Amino acid sequence: MEQRKKIAIIVAGGSGTRMGSAVPKQFLELSGKPVLWHTVNAFATAFPDIHIVLVLPEPHFDYVRPWLHEFSTGVVVTLVKGGETRFHSVKNGLSEVKEPAVVFVHDGVRPLISTALIRSCYETALSAGSAIPVIDMKDSIRQIEGEQNKAVDREQFKIIQTPQTFLSEWLLPAFSLPYDPLFTDEATVVERQGHRVHLVPGEEANIKITRPLDLTIASALLKERS
Amino acid sequence: MEQRKKIAIIVAGGSGTRMGSAVPKQFLELSGKPVLWHTVNAFATAFPDIHIVLVLPEPHFDYVRPWLHEFSTGVVVTLVKGGETRFHSVKNGLSEVKEPAVVFVHDGVRPLISTALIRSCYETALSAGSAIPVIDMKDSIRQIEGEQNKAVDREQFKIIQTPQTFLSEWLLPAFSLPYDPLFTDEATVVERQGHRVHLVPGEEANIKITRPLDLTIASALLKERS
Repeated sequence: MEQRKKIAIIVAGGSGTRMGSAVPKQFLELSGKPVLWHTVNAFATAFPDIHIVLVLPEPHFDYVRPWLHEFSTGVVVTLVKGGETRFHSVKNGLSEVKEPAVVFVHDGVRPLISTALIRSCYETALSAGSAIPVIDMKDSIRQIEGEQNKAVDREQFKIIQTPQTFLSEWLLPAFSLPYDPLFTDEATVVERQGHRVHLVPGEEANIKITRPLDLTIASALLKERS
Repeated sequence: MEQRKKIAIIVAGGSGTRMGSAVPKQFLELSGKPVLWHTVNAFATAFPDIHIVLVLPEPHFDYVRPWLHEFSTGVVVTLVKGGETRFHSVKNGLSEVKEPAVVFVHDGVRPLISTALIRSCYETALSAGSAIPVIDMKDSIRQIEGEQNKAVDREQFKIIQTPQTFLSEWLLPAFSLPYDPLFTDEATVVERQGHRVHLVPGEEANIKITRPLDLTIASALLKERS
């Protein structure tokens, strides 16, 4: 099977205000290591020759420098300055993509991503151009319309996770488009270019840490795993 | 302020097949007590004069009998046989509502419900006729349409929790309607009668235990609380 360079753009731009903590959420401790360390480690474990591009606010570079070299010798980690929005941050990260690659764009605050899911996104993006992990919605939902609200069929919806994974020849031209506030994730940018994105099964445990509750949950899940 | 009889219909009909366990999920142990015990305890703590109607498959009655009398002396717990669908189970439970009441309908597998949320549902149902707890959607979602899928604005949607709470004069006539598979929860039944349901803020921790992962999460949240 074709092999390709793997590049993971890990976006960790949050200021962590929702966590009620002075330390940004991506640097809070989870089982003795920063949240972001776990995220980087998952990609470094999945592909020991991966290039990891960490997109961070410049004042946060010092948080990660102490542990940047803890991964396999084949793993390259580059620091890139974040932008005004996620779109701009990812675009900055893409400046590191200089040859055909499979590019993962992943939330820094999803540290529980498994190596199996990373590899399955790679395989699917290689053959289908893109791979967007999704999971079923387990709760009932209602749609709000002004003062009204109505029940909708949850079977029609999927919850989106990351890594949103693409061939570089899909992602690079898409990110040369002018910024649009409707670009809520990478899939919406690539779709604007006329591509159809490919959904793959995600993982329940691939949670996003945004509230103190999530850190408790992540810690319990990590303990159970080991 | 007006006071009313409080009746909680707690529906615990699941067979637990998704848990990969012989014991139905509502009877699995959580911090030393069955999941369903915690659920009953939350309502018994919120209102020491509450009437709790536990709707269960008849073969499960023996699971709960040993601890039915562990709550305040003012709390009455009645066992009622479950029906073919959730609609039928709730309808069976409603046979115990014999005077004007505020009626909570709650998932047996949501043991982390707080007394504060139970009481706020009571107050709102008393003044507005109904109270449906909802929380924001924190993940991006996509709508599936056949082979296609498209991004939708998650701000337009809310995740529905229980207890769905109603005045008995709304709920009883609604449940005399013929069964319709579109009745996915109590709110949809009441809406069919022409009522508009009232949404109230739910709780992130009011999770539904349906998978082994959820039991790990619930256990961590409960430990943190105590």
